[in-house]
Amino acid sequence: MRDRIELIGVPGIPEAAEGDDVAALIARALRNARIEAVDGDVLVVAQKIVSKAEGRIVKLDSVEPSARAQEWASAYDKDARVVEVVMRESKRIVRMERGVLISETEHGFVCANAGVDTSNVAEGTVTLLPKDPDASARQIRSELEAAFGVRIAVIVSDTFGRPWREGLVNVALGVSGIAPLIDYRGQKDSHGNALKVTVIAIADELASAAELVMKKSAGVPVAIVRGFDYESRDASGLELIRVPELDLFR
Amino acid sequence: MRDRIELIGVPGIPEAAEGDDVAALIARALRNARIEAVDGDVLVVAQKIVSKAEGRIVKLDSVEPSARAQEWASAYDKDARVVEVVMRESKRIVRMERGVLISETEHGFVCANAGVDTSNVAEGTVTLLPKDPDASARQIRSELEAAFGVRIAVIVSDTFGRPWREGLVNVALGVSGIAPLIDYRGQKDSHGNALKVTVIAIADELASAAELVMKKSAGVPVAIVRGFDYESRDASGLELIRVPELDLFR
Repeated sequence: MRDRIELIGVPGIPEAAEGDDVAALIARALRNARIEAVDGDVLVVAQKIVSKAEGRIVKLDSVEPSARAQEWASAYDKDARVVEVVMRESKRIVRMERGVLISETEHGFVCANAGVDTSNVAEGTVTLLPKDPDASARQIRSELEAAFGVRIAVIVSDTFGRPWREGLVNVALGVSGIAPLIDYRGQKDSHGNALKVTVIAIADELASAAELVMKKSAGVPVAIVRGFDYESRDASGLELIRVPELDLFR
Repeated sequence: MRDRIELIGVPGIPEAAEGDDVAALIARALRNARIEAVDGDVLVVAQKIVSKAEGRIVKLDSVEPSARAQEWASAYDKDARVVEVVMRESKRIVRMERGVLISETEHGFVCANAGVDTSNVAEGTVTLLPKDPDASARQIRSELEAAFGVRIAVIVSDTFGRPWREGLVNVALGVSGIAPLIDYRGQKDSHGNALKVTVIAIADELASAAELVMKKSAGVPVAIVRGFDYESRDASGLELIRVPELDLFR
């Protein structure tokens, strides 16, 4: 086990536009900043830049809000067109109370506003979550591995709220080349007892760690976590979603 | 904004016993490992070592389980004495289904088993959460600041599960010398729009980052996060608890 990890914000990544190659933007920024990608790096990439490059943007002018969206919007002083987009992105509404709309997305993520975001986008538009965050991560990974001749892992992240606790934390939506959970069950603790239910959501912790150098408004959508030992394998961010049968908070 | 952060696991911290001075254990380990504490370091300390030093340990022999605890325990093949301790530590049961007991502690934390833990403790005993994690953090901070002549922040952490997502992540229970939330509201995004609802639970992200070098079974209960700029002020981990009126998942 290595006991030092470095978190490195990647500066100089420009605003992405539809059709941009995110991996190419990252590669150029790394070269300009003279940051070497090295074997084992975990690259955490904010959903926003991925969504923009993938054209996951909706112009609100084109949205016709339903009666339900209008009703909710007028009750809570919201833009009915944004509410409509949120509802379209929702497979299931989990809570819709006191101006807060928590839903399950098509992917299965449970989050506020189905991940639809009005910040850091051009006026009159909103961004949606990437269609397939694992595929986005895989694409970025394979291009960067080819460009730098290294083996890395990629996590596509977004900031989510949580029940019971204030504030957002960065979590993993899609992953490539890293197992998102570490299962300590069966291992012994320091007293020789088997550890019982200790599964750590390592991809979420990596995303949260990376956020410390990304920072919300600072225009740093990519960070490297260097020095962390992880299980490199084909994996999916969907492993982080609790299956309905075990979910007490549906 | 600094764009490099270092996560440093502190090796060589022994198992704590009731009455131990946690700050002294940490100071000795830092000196032995030739790790210098520097201004601005955030020290993340696992709850377990704090609880043990503070004597927050219950011998199960001394516990008389109630009928309710016995019933639940026999239905789900659990130790009725552990269930009894969990119930005593719970101000309110949030969910008690399918073998999972989620409750609100006296402090207000909502977590599985009220934070009562059977791993990494001597057989026949369980640990409770520290009585006042902020006070624990404050004590450790003031002793270490005096010992090293620096200004630092301290977070007392524990791994919690979350609804909807698999796996545990490390979060902050108590803090000293650091504001646990960063409020970006009112700041502008890169398009000049005011950021609306972006409050980041920075203390939780710091705890999660630290966990990457602490690791569950590896006996590293303390880590340093170095190079992160934060607001140094009197603060409480309880700021991370959502007030009941805004909590849709009570």
